[in-house]
Amino acid sequence: MADAEIIAVGSEMLTSQRIDTNSLYITDQLNALGVEVRRKLIVGDDRALLTDAVQSALSHAEIVILTGGLGPTEDDVTRQSVADALHRELVFSQEICDTIEDRFRRRQRKMAEINKRQAYVVAGAEVLPNANGTAPGQWIASDGRVLIMLPGPPGELKPLFANECIPRLTKLLPAQVIRARFYRVTGFTESDLDALIAPVYTKYTNPSTTILASPGDIQIHLRARCGSAEDAERLLAEVGDPIEELLGRHLFSRNGDPLEAIVGTLLRERRATLSVAESCTGGMVGERITSIAGSSDYFVGGFVTYTDRMKADLLGVDAALIAEHTAVSKEIARAMAEGARSRTSSTFAVSITGEAGPESSTGAPVGTIFVGFAGPDGPPDALRFAMPGDRARIRGFATQAALDLLRRRLLKLE
Amino acid sequence: MADAEIIAVGSEMLTSQRIDTNSLYITDQLNALGVEVRRKLIVGDDRALLTDAVQSALSHAEIVILTGGLGPTEDDVTRQSVADALHRELVFSQEICDTIEDRFRRRQRKMAEINKRQAYVVAGAEVLPNANGTAPGQWIASDGRVLIMLPGPPGELKPLFANECIPRLTKLLPAQVIRARFYRVTGFTESDLDALIAPVYTKYTNPSTTILASPGDIQIHLRARCGSAEDAERLLAEVGDPIEELLGRHLFSRNGDPLEAIVGTLLRERRATLSVAESCTGGMVGERITSIAGSSDYFVGGFVTYTDRMKADLLGVDAALIAEHTAVSKEIARAMAEGARSRTSSTFAVSITGEAGPESSTGAPVGTIFVGFAGPDGPPDALRFAMPGDRARIRGFATQAALDLLRRRLLKLE
Repeated sequence: MADAEIIAVGSEMLTSQRIDTNSLYITDQLNALGVEVRRKLIVGDDRALLTDAVQSALSHAEIVILTGGLGPTEDDVTRQSVADALHRELVFSQEICDTIEDRFRRRQRKMAEINKRQAYVVAGAEVLPNANGTAPGQWIASDGRVLIMLPGPPGELKPLFANECIPRLTKLLPAQVIRARFYRVTGFTESDLDALIAPVYTKYTNPSTTILASPGDIQIHLRARCGSAEDAERLLAEVGDPIEELLGRHLFSRNGDPLEAIVGTLLRERRATLSVAESCTGGMVGERITSIAGSSDYFVGGFVTYTDRMKADLLGVDAALIAEHTAVSKEIARAMAEGARSRTSSTFAVSITGEAGPESSTGAPVGTIFVGFAGPDGPPDALRFAMPGDRARIRGFATQAALDLLRRRLLKLE
Repeated sequence: MADAEIIAVGSEMLTSQRIDTNSLYITDQLNALGVEVRRKLIVGDDRALLTDAVQSALSHAEIVILTGGLGPTEDDVTRQSVADALHRELVFSQEICDTIEDRFRRRQRKMAEINKRQAYVVAGAEVLPNANGTAPGQWIASDGRVLIMLPGPPGELKPLFANECIPRLTKLLPAQVIRARFYRVTGFTESDLDALIAPVYTKYTNPSTTILASPGDIQIHLRARCGSAEDAERLLAEVGDPIEELLGRHLFSRNGDPLEAIVGTLLRERRATLSVAESCTGGMVGERITSIAGSSDYFVGGFVTYTDRMKADLLGVDAALIAEHTAVSKEIARAMAEGARSRTSSTFAVSITGEAGPESSTGAPVGTIFVGFAGPDGPPDALRFAMPGDRARIRGFATQAALDLLRRRLLKLE
């Protein structure tokens, strides 16, 4: 298996506010080709430091990928540093210069003199055309190693990598087939989940298993790497099938889709519509549902009822019921869902009411959340949760719990 | 000024799903001490590679900080690699071993034999006690350089760095005062903003200026580093005051607060209330408003009216008006804001209707957004925007535009 090192160039990525995310995309693509990333380095716009880093990377890895530092300013030192590291010249390319000039002309603008810097290539490099920006990529094969220079903006880097680099890398690397399963699970803590499924996956290094947890959403990636698709699929089934069995109703996605996409598909299949009534989440459920393109097929709308009066006025929740049970109660969650459903004539409705903190307004402990559900089969219903964490985390958990309750009701799971 | 390099150790940070975030915290702390981070490296759990990285870092930087790899398993190679790099021995510390054993005992658990690995220190290292985990940090001064080993979990790393490292570093480094301004701006592209203010800030290296852009929200950090607070404040004023002048009404925050916090404060000061009516953003405005603790002081609630019928039923928008102008129009944005305001009796209301894509339902180009506003002074009002990008970006821009329109109306800016 080949090893890679990724070098992100740019002083802004050495501040406390920025992070190199290009390397995540590149890592994913390289892994799928069977290439392991051994080191990632972030260097500022410093010619000598970068030259040194390139030489060091070439001594460790067969594939070295540099991102950024290909702009037109003095600060952009990647071209020069790579030339220095390889003891090669930088050569002016009239062809690249013409392409850049053309790009400006098409936008009714004149190319600045400074942009000519971007027309220099390391002697012997292959130019990788960049359809989305002025800086082309460069591909240098040298002593059995490959060095790739890519522009920093993700919108330029990704298509360039996909169109120009992956085909070239595929030719270089031994033929391999990668097959993956991408599960998503809710209703577990990471440690409980791991205790449950570790006895299965730890017996295998192929497929590899990666577990990632965020509030209310644990992702499990299985990736099998084999000489044939059949072998890869067989290995995936050998590990994945018993894991699916163990996860049961907690498994909501087999292809990596988020919960809002899963419930969207379930609603569309049933030709059903949905409305929402949100208190402490303030619109998060609606925001997630409508983040899916085409959600107007099943989502009609909803209510953000942040005060008791709004719960009464907009949803018809009985003020006496609120006085009796407080707004953070099973009774009010139910009444909110039923109110949203009847006022929008949707097939289903979900509701959330709770204490997101930092202070409690009803006396219920911070983190207390009620999720309500209303539908055509039977009376409205609500579940109580005690969510850990701060305001943002509690709201995230609550939203996930509401979407998951909807999923389970749509699938008629217990 | 001293230079630092941060090395994050752990193979999990070389996957496409994980990222090193400890370095952001450390960078922030180091910058405040006047220390510049020159390189950041991420290395897997590989003893030889890490040894090599430590040696290389010590040749570049006066301060080398390693995070992670101090656990009890075979994979945890940081202690051994640092010892190798410095040609020193690892020494068993009975004192650390007793502390770890004690920690287990207090939790009614027995220390596993494997945890004894965590009691080894590099010869000559100072031990940095870890109140929140089993692995202590280590501090090694060598040849005018400092090498620090810290545990990986952020909940252990941060207090350990704050309590043990900052005081030691402060003693080592020249006395300095840091003062900062943190502006946030909307309604500019990054390049337009930079063209406007670069003539001011590029004349100064102190204060340093960092510009960070995300959709509809550009952050400008000025950081002055001086021998006295007066000097730092004077420099900040010298650069910051003319920048504020140039930014004018686009400047919404002087302390880094997000727009939803700024409008919250303005509403609270005016004892005013707010409601929202959202179409293509599906709840994002409500979600952001309610992400602020205490937003129930001014936010009453709102409507997600994703379909034409919901706009009519929930907000009282005239169906004939929709038929005449389509739902994506100035007229409907106005009617939505007015409907939300009158149905909730709030002081102010904002609305959003538009085409977030990927397809247009009304014929208006994708990215067309109307933001409506209704208040007690004068008739409702709406602005048209053409937002670039994909669905997520358009929705983000639209939400920001709605919050900013509200801000400007509350401040009676043009």
